[in-house]
Amino acid sequence: MVQVEQDIMAANQRYADANRRLFAQRGIFAVNLVSSPGSGKTSLLVKTVEALKGEIPVAVIEGDQQTGLDAERIKATGVPAWQINTGKGCHLDAHGVGHALEHLPELQGGILFIENVGNLVCPAGFDLGEAHKVVVLSTTEGEDKPLKYPDMFYASDLMLLNKSDLLPYVDFSVEKAEAFARQVHPSIKSITLSARTGQGMETWLAWLRAAAALARIAA
Amino acid sequence: MVQVEQDIMAANQRYADANRRLFAQRGIFAVNLVSSPGSGKTSLLVKTVEALKGEIPVAVIEGDQQTGLDAERIKATGVPAWQINTGKGCHLDAHGVGHALEHLPELQGGILFIENVGNLVCPAGFDLGEAHKVVVLSTTEGEDKPLKYPDMFYASDLMLLNKSDLLPYVDFSVEKAEAFARQVHPSIKSITLSARTGQGMETWLAWLRAAAALARIAA
Repeated sequence: MVQVEQDIMAANQRYADANRRLFAQRGIFAVNLVSSPGSGKTSLLVKTVEALKGEIPVAVIEGDQQTGLDAERIKATGVPAWQINTGKGCHLDAHGVGHALEHLPELQGGILFIENVGNLVCPAGFDLGEAHKVVVLSTTEGEDKPLKYPDMFYASDLMLLNKSDLLPYVDFSVEKAEAFARQVHPSIKSITLSARTGQGMETWLAWLRAAAALARIAA
Repeated sequence: MVQVEQDIMAANQRYADANRRLFAQRGIFAVNLVSSPGSGKTSLLVKTVEALKGEIPVAVIEGDQQTGLDAERIKATGVPAWQINTGKGCHLDAHGVGHALEHLPELQGGILFIENVGNLVCPAGFDLGEAHKVVVLSTTEGEDKPLKYPDMFYASDLMLLNKSDLLPYVDFSVEKAEAFARQVHPSIKSITLSARTGQGMETWLAWLRAAAALARIAA
């Protein structure tokens, strides 16, 4: 079993390296969005691509076990999207992402969003070739998640505390969530936002724009 | 011996984590410049900080086995610098960098340059808390270095091919150097430049400005 797992991870890493090389050549900033189910990743993505689409090339790869619902929501904004159904799989892999790219525009100098399968465990270990994993934690989930799922918060460079509009109605401490996340990953960044009300969205968009600007240089 | 090495690396990682946390809190972009001796790192740094100093807070930590010559060259530009002498050590470590920070200004939203000891082996394994290692390879050194010192080129996210003004006089192929570097590290970026003539400096400065902008967001 150990040998099999090593083979899978080594093969995934080769495909991830190939994706990363392609992103570097094209000056693409690729971000891998991870979270538990229901954190609001797709709603956040819809608002995000609507804000960016006139300004910079954007596209989305959607991962779910079944259905093409999320890709349909993105495509309704006019932004290209490709759905991967993982079937029994609990995470996207780099090989599948590479093939999804064949169905999307070239995105020279743009941003590729990869929305992973809703799962706080499996996607942590699979490099897709992205520049950063971004973990979305919603205020309805409790602030203990970074301690319970440390691998994911260690693998992510940015934490989005989504559904900030519900903070008055839930027992959730932003300070505690950030302290727990930094216990696992001392330099993780954190943005509190609400895809619904727009609060904090400008900081998230500024982070995306700055990262995309960096990816374009010397590409 | 194995146990001793593990202890040293684990201790270094704890100090590196602390440095990285401090950089994140202050919105500092920290870059760790590595190369063989004589690649022109200090001359490049002098030109770099001269270009940036009116625009953004900058400071430099210099690492050498002996002498304070490099820090003196930086300080002559009016930019704060602190020299670390490693004695018999062939690389900087995160603990030493943490103490050097006590002698430098806070640098809120700025760029910290760490010039490592000239050595293409030892510094590769030591995280200092930097955002990126940047490897400087000069055109007089031959384009085979990425293959001979793969750990360093794997650890570095950007390669600066320095002394481009000497390209007409040396047997050095930029294409081969880049191909070799990408063989080791598929997504490594590459900028060809000359600290002496200024060729390519604007691309390097643009990369630094974009990375510093990213570091400031959500800090």
